[in-house]
Amino acid sequence: MKTFNTLQWIGDIDGCLELTDQRKLPAEFTTIRCRTVEQLYNSIKTLAVRGAPAIGVAAAFGVCLAAQETKKLKLTDALKLIEQKINYLASSRPTAVNLFWALERMKKKLNEVAEIDILQKCLLIEAQKIYDEDVEMCRKIGINGEKFILDNSAILTHCNAGALATAGIGTALAPMFEAQKNGKKFKVYADETRPLLQGARLTAWELKQASIDVTVICDNMAGALMKDKKINAIFVGADRIASNGDTANKIGTYSLSVLAKFHNIPFYIAAPSSTFDLQIQTGNDIPIEQRAADEVSNFMNFMSAPKGINVYNPAFDVTPAENITAIITEKGVIECPTKEKIKNLINH
Amino acid sequence: MKTFNTLQWIGDIDGCLELTDQRKLPAEFTTIRCRTVEQLYNSIKTLAVRGAPAIGVAAAFGVCLAAQETKKLKLTDALKLIEQKINYLASSRPTAVNLFWALERMKKKLNEVAEIDILQKCLLIEAQKIYDEDVEMCRKIGINGEKFILDNSAILTHCNAGALATAGIGTALAPMFEAQKNGKKFKVYADETRPLLQGARLTAWELKQASIDVTVICDNMAGALMKDKKINAIFVGADRIASNGDTANKIGTYSLSVLAKFHNIPFYIAAPSSTFDLQIQTGNDIPIEQRAADEVSNFMNFMSAPKGINVYNPAFDVTPAENITAIITEKGVIECPTKEKIKNLINH
Repeated sequence: MKTFNTLQWIGDIDGCLELTDQRKLPAEFTTIRCRTVEQLYNSIKTLAVRGAPAIGVAAAFGVCLAAQETKKLKLTDALKLIEQKINYLASSRPTAVNLFWALERMKKKLNEVAEIDILQKCLLIEAQKIYDEDVEMCRKIGINGEKFILDNSAILTHCNAGALATAGIGTALAPMFEAQKNGKKFKVYADETRPLLQGARLTAWELKQASIDVTVICDNMAGALMKDKKINAIFVGADRIASNGDTANKIGTYSLSVLAKFHNIPFYIAAPSSTFDLQIQTGNDIPIEQRAADEVSNFMNFMSAPKGINVYNPAFDVTPAENITAIITEKGVIECPTKEKIKNLINH
Repeated sequence: MKTFNTLQWIGDIDGCLELTDQRKLPAEFTTIRCRTVEQLYNSIKTLAVRGAPAIGVAAAFGVCLAAQETKKLKLTDALKLIEQKINYLASSRPTAVNLFWALERMKKKLNEVAEIDILQKCLLIEAQKIYDEDVEMCRKIGINGEKFILDNSAILTHCNAGALATAGIGTALAPMFEAQKNGKKFKVYADETRPLLQGARLTAWELKQASIDVTVICDNMAGALMKDKKINAIFVGADRIASNGDTANKIGTYSLSVLAKFHNIPFYIAAPSSTFDLQIQTGNDIPIEQRAADEVSNFMNFMSAPKGINVYNPAFDVTPAENITAIITEKGVIECPTKEKIKNLINH
């Protein structure tokens, strides 16, 4: 069971957004309170809050923070200012589509507001609705995905697509929490997930908190485990899914999908329907965020590579649809994903 | 070109073994001097000296250190003591076969010695011979492997099978040094190689020293690079090769071999013929060293995973022969390795 809040709004319209500071885990459990859009932008940028669904929810509350700055303005000026702040928030992470999805939804609400007096309240209600839907989405993904976890099996996961990545119980980890509730026995291998170690730091932490049997491995050990028949299924999240099912997720996901295919191990993506970007035809069109060299060469102030060395550090890679056994969403499961199946489910 | 000594014997029969302390690289270039077998054992165990060929050469000199303790003994007692020290040295790393090979050769020399007076000198000459042969072996591997490096290509390597892993210019990196000498243009991607980062710390350091264009990536990025057609060939070393060609090498090598096969990228093993263990039929019989959890969960005093978390930390994995395009040795190249081809080359 989940024992913490990844993010929550504190107070009423003049409140603030409280985040679990994921940069400090697992050594320390602390929270930070964002009172400005700029604070939230930095929190997203520096990964204090991360995970595609959580970023979306946080950004929605960020629009409420923006609205707090418009009190003395006329409605048109207020709307203009908020739109600027929305564009600013949208630039914090280029790959996670839930971010744009949530901001788009807040923008739509913005356009429905006729009076400045009710602006803040309307936006806070909408953000809270996005939060509640996220919790419900996770619950349903858990229920829809649980059947793919066999009793006495071992699951591999990559990065963190757990409670820490959402407002609810996670996406890739949700079926595990559900299986645990149903009394199934299973163990989880968590890829540590270089460079920022979200698997070792976050997934291992939250599964251990929930008393789920978890073992940390380095990313390069997954293939050897598969060869030794120690992995029965792989569950990962997603940052953006193209209309043909090609899926952008944390760097390393693509390699796992190839290894899974080679070893005949089912490979599941678990993600809310808001992760689909039907504007995008294939994975080739998904922009991939490149991050700083220092994350690789100078991690936590340990000089792990020579000074000034070249580093290639993409945050994500794209797994082609044909490597995916099924995409598990809150609306249902898409086995062997195709453009048509995805369109049918999403528009349903 | 190589600009340092991985290991060298200093002085005459009462001298000592000087090692480049690889634990301190790339932050600091320092050497340590081993004057006892116990110091050398610890240097091997803690990876101050590492790389299968270098460990073999170091262990040969270790026998010379053992012989320094026998001055006041009768020949039979001296031989007994040295044999004990040889067994002790053999237990320092269980996977690297070159270690046993070098110790076996020193033992043979031991049995040829008829007088205590010449014991130390005979052993030092033999150890120096093993050293010189290692230098020559590297040179030949470089020449034999160079043709597989195409002009304007990009090469991926894993861990460190370079000059730091041998007495000479390395095994997997030797063809690169040779290609550079011949004026070929190429770039190298170095897997950082968790948990101990030999790729980021050592391979990147020595290639940069040699002015070879090198870029560090996390292990989980290799697949995405292959998908993007940014890798033309993979070169890695080996710690032990079974008689059918199955190859134990640094953990993560197996995953790379599967990814290479999937993307039709040639996958080369470069290793001296002393790496073959013809006593062993297949890779299933190669013992795999398990290392401490702390290497993964508490790297360089950064707590990267929750306290007390389960960790799986094998030092090596086994790549089946069918995933290997060719094994490059000092005696020649074995393409599509089979038991028969290996036997022919080794016994030639």
